Amino acid sequence: MITGKNYIGKRLSGNGAKTFRTFNPLLNIENEHVFTEASIEEINEAAFLATDAYKVYNQKSGAEKAVFLNAIADEILALDTSLINTYCTESGLPEGRALGERGRTISQLRAFAKVLEEGSWVEAIIDTAIPEREPIPKVDLRKMLVPLGPVVVFGASNFPLAFSTAGGDTAAALAAGCPVIVKSHPLHAGTGELVSSAIIKAVETTGMPNGVFSNLNSSGIEVGVQLVQHPDVKAVGFTGSIRGGRALFDLASQRAEPIPVFAEMGSINPVIMLPNALKDRAAELAKTYANSITVGSGQFCTNPGLLLGLKGEDFDNFTKSLADEIVEIEPSCMLHPDIISAYEKNKHSAISHEGLVVAADYGSEIAVNHARQAIVTVAGKTFLANKNLHQEVFGPFSMLVQCEDAKELEAIISNMEGQLTGTIISDNNEVRDYFGIVSALQNRVGRIIFNGVPTGVEVCPAMQHGGPYPASTDSRFTAVGTQSIKRWVRPFSFQNWPDALLPDELKRSNPLGISRIVNGEQTRKGN
Amino acid sequence: MITGKNYIGKRLSGNGAKTFRTFNPLLNIENEHVFTEASIEEINEAAFLATDAYKVYNQKSGAEKAVFLNAIADEILALDTSLINTYCTESGLPEGRALGERGRTISQLRAFAKVLEEGSWVEAIIDTAIPEREPIPKVDLRKMLVPLGPVVVFGASNFPLAFSTAGGDTAAALAAGCPVIVKSHPLHAGTGELVSSAIIKAVETTGMPNGVFSNLNSSGIEVGVQLVQHPDVKAVGFTGSIRGGRALFDLASQRAEPIPVFAEMGSINPVIMLPNALKDRAAELAKTYANSITVGSGQFCTNPGLLLGLKGEDFDNFTKSLADEIVEIEPSCMLHPDIISAYEKNKHSAISHEGLVVAADYGSEIAVNHARQAIVTVAGKTFLANKNLHQEVFGPFSMLVQCEDAKELEAIISNMEGQLTGTIISDNNEVRDYFGIVSALQNRVGRIIFNGVPTGVEVCPAMQHGGPYPASTDSRFTAVGTQSIKRWVRPFSFQNWPDALLPDELKRSNPLGISRIVNGEQTRKGN
Repeated sequence: MITGKNYIGKRLSGNGAKTFRTFNPLLNIENEHVFTEASIEEINEAAFLATDAYKVYNQKSGAEKAVFLNAIADEILALDTSLINTYCTESGLPEGRALGERGRTISQLRAFAKVLEEGSWVEAIIDTAIPEREPIPKVDLRKMLVPLGPVVVFGASNFPLAFSTAGGDTAAALAAGCPVIVKSHPLHAGTGELVSSAIIKAVETTGMPNGVFSNLNSSGIEVGVQLVQHPDVKAVGFTGSIRGGRALFDLASQRAEPIPVFAEMGSINPVIMLPNALKDRAAELAKTYANSITVGSGQFCTNPGLLLGLKGEDFDNFTKSLADEIVEIEPSCMLHPDIISAYEKNKHSAISHEGLVVAADYGSEIAVNHARQAIVTVAGKTFLANKNLHQEVFGPFSMLVQCEDAKELEAIISNMEGQLTGTIISDNNEVRDYFGIVSALQNRVGRIIFNGVPTGVEVCPAMQHGGPYPASTDSRFTAVGTQSIKRWVRPFSFQNWPDALLPDELKRSNPLGISRIVNGEQTRKGN
Repeated sequence: MITGKNYIGKRLSGNGAKTFRTFNPLLNIENEHVFTEASIEEINEAAFLATDAYKVYNQKSGAEKAVFLNAIADEILALDTSLINTYCTESGLPEGRALGERGRTISQLRAFAKVLEEGSWVEAIIDTAIPEREPIPKVDLRKMLVPLGPVVVFGASNFPLAFSTAGGDTAAALAAGCPVIVKSHPLHAGTGELVSSAIIKAVETTGMPNGVFSNLNSSGIEVGVQLVQHPDVKAVGFTGSIRGGRALFDLASQRAEPIPVFAEMGSINPVIMLPNALKDRAAELAKTYANSITVGSGQFCTNPGLLLGLKGEDFDNFTKSLADEIVEIEPSCMLHPDIISAYEKNKHSAISHEGLVVAADYGSEIAVNHARQAIVTVAGKTFLANKNLHQEVFGPFSMLVQCEDAKELEAIISNMEGQLTGTIISDNNEVRDYFGIVSALQNRVGRIIFNGVPTGVEVCPAMQHGGPYPASTDSRFTAVGTQSIKRWVRPFSFQNWPDALLPDELKRSNPLGISRIVNGEQTRKGN
């Protein structure tokens, strides 16, 4: 049941003065429930409870935390159609996407549970003592990763489940041993409350401390600002726009005690189409990319917003095929009227730049809040000279850049801001002739793809989702996959600590049987 | 030979207008050589060369980089007495310390070389494709750590070798594959130039690209500011004061492209003396701590600046013994007249606070620039109420806090800023009765020590040197030990990349034989 209130730990609370509703973009009407934005008292209480919960929660074993995460997954599944229906009415996304995203959310939680059960993620490193060493004895040192403290997670507009309330950031932080305070995304506050109720049920059934999770409603920026500035908060996770992420990063950096902000932000995900591939596979590539540009109304951070090729007949043919394909695709609903109007505004602002030619712009009649997909072409020289063209247009839009030669293409890549992904479309051999381009691309992205599309982010340990700024605020970490747990932990060393008082992960006998580095050797043996 | 010039890559250059000399604190005179501060043109050239060198250097194999690091170590040893003499005349530190620090510097370089030769440090993670997976095939993903780009390293005043020109930050960054620009510390510019000449020789003999290393002289803050703001610089390493580190962190955070700053800053390294240990071992502990407080004139970031105990006869006896022991120790020379005058000023400012009692202050005649060691006592309540008393006094000084009870002691720890280390002095069993205190301490530090002293930082993989702010600007990393390489790298994923074009670390056959995580299993096998 949706109450419109905040979860301050286990307690439903709605003392604030500000209220708001979510919006159904398909029906173009407000949804029924009224949500109450968290008050400053509620924010403070959530932070206080989180700090208190941290003292208990950071002592929980991996096995206990795994039970908790699996219980969250079970409780989310138990919400059944009420969750799916609320998701759809608050996002305009189809049921299939809701089910798929729920599946991803569940499997992320269970993947972290598995990591915790296995236990080696703490990166235990042990250097045993050498009492007889000269001139001074060598001490016994044992190191492992420990949680940072309460983490604030910002729900993302474009992933009401997988990057929001119980999404990747929350799952990773809870797995690490950090309490989580979610700043719920206003576009899907009902979905957020339902998922929060599932987490709170799991808190209760698995005996986790009150305050290990809170969910705060907000309609504007105030709640988020207060959370990031709160002295009890020790780290921040965010997925969204560059403007939003940078604002949070600046607030966090200016604190008396600066804290890490892991913000996963904008990206136009350049795709480089090498000549032989274009000559041989233009039609197939056009179909593939028409789909990749428009999937989910282009509302993915890995949407291919920039296609680069060498100018000439082959690139022209590809452009024509892509234009033909893309207008055949049925437009889909965007998340909110504000998002579609931003899309149309940014698209027209991009198109209005000198030298841009519209290759396709869906022109037929269209349902309310549905997005008209479009592609445009521009000369490499023009693109290189105008940084405004490098900005993301969030939606089903892509720019095709006709480069004079490989040197110009390399210059464009070298002058781009950091990106989540870069893609090379190549016949198998020709990529060898473009070492400079590939090397420049590697320097600008977090993931490089061969003959594929950037959309579709596999959740697995080898995934890197995060790249040089402004793709992320800290490229040293990933936002997707189990390695994302590393954002919320720090290494901690015990020197000459009594074995009985060490955490199990570091005890001599290795009671958990985890993989550790002992005196330089990776081993599951005791020491 | 010392020329007083900067190394802009391999080229000696001294075009700037500002000159300065180093100082011999033992003789209380300026040293002979005149150093020329780097000009803005020289800074820009060093950055340009570093960016260019990065393109070549980041392709070097681990084996090639290991040869380079070992060659640096060899060339530093070859400097022989000229280096040791210059070190001593620029620091006032004794020859034994110079030799010890040189040994540490050499062994750090060789330790990183070993890590590179073995190769598994890149954390290769491989998830192989599942083409038949429904509804969509699983792609092949291969991830490893890659270097960030040019790194600026600030030399530290208190470690002319081990935390300066070819110190831990430089060794880690070069090992990672990042070119390094050193902002030489003005107190030991001659030592810095000699070590730089060794690095440049190693660059030449091992065929490394010009610009992989530069060394810039500076007398004030300008050179450092310009380097941190330079768009070609991608990360910063710093060891020094909180004020200095925070200033660099702020500059780096406010850049158009923010970059990571790993600053290892101040710490007062609380030591908690539990009652039974104090009762049984006061005399022995007093001797041990008199040495730890005064070693190196207290000019270590791990100097024990705060000793906490429960008030009463046993703590009083310990205090008296410590006072007796500490005045027996021969005062030693500090690094520079400015450092000794800051020490005396901060010490007197601390002592002048209401409620502080001087327990010992070396009062005999003393040589020029030598530090008078001192200890003071204060009531827990007074300490808790006055944050000024929590500030580091850099030098041979420690404050003994007499706590009313365990609860007050825990409150003091909980209210402290982040620290590098925390120490518990305990008989083996009594620590079990102080869970709250130990837990609070763990939450405030990066390394916790049982029955030892915080001084003496072992260089090994299990060492954590770095703690919650302001001990470090990013507690997620260490500044000492081979794990410190992680500050200068980011994860990078290859998706469906042709095997022949992958780095050796990720190839199917695992030609380097490194330990990788392949489909969840740690293995040295191919896949």
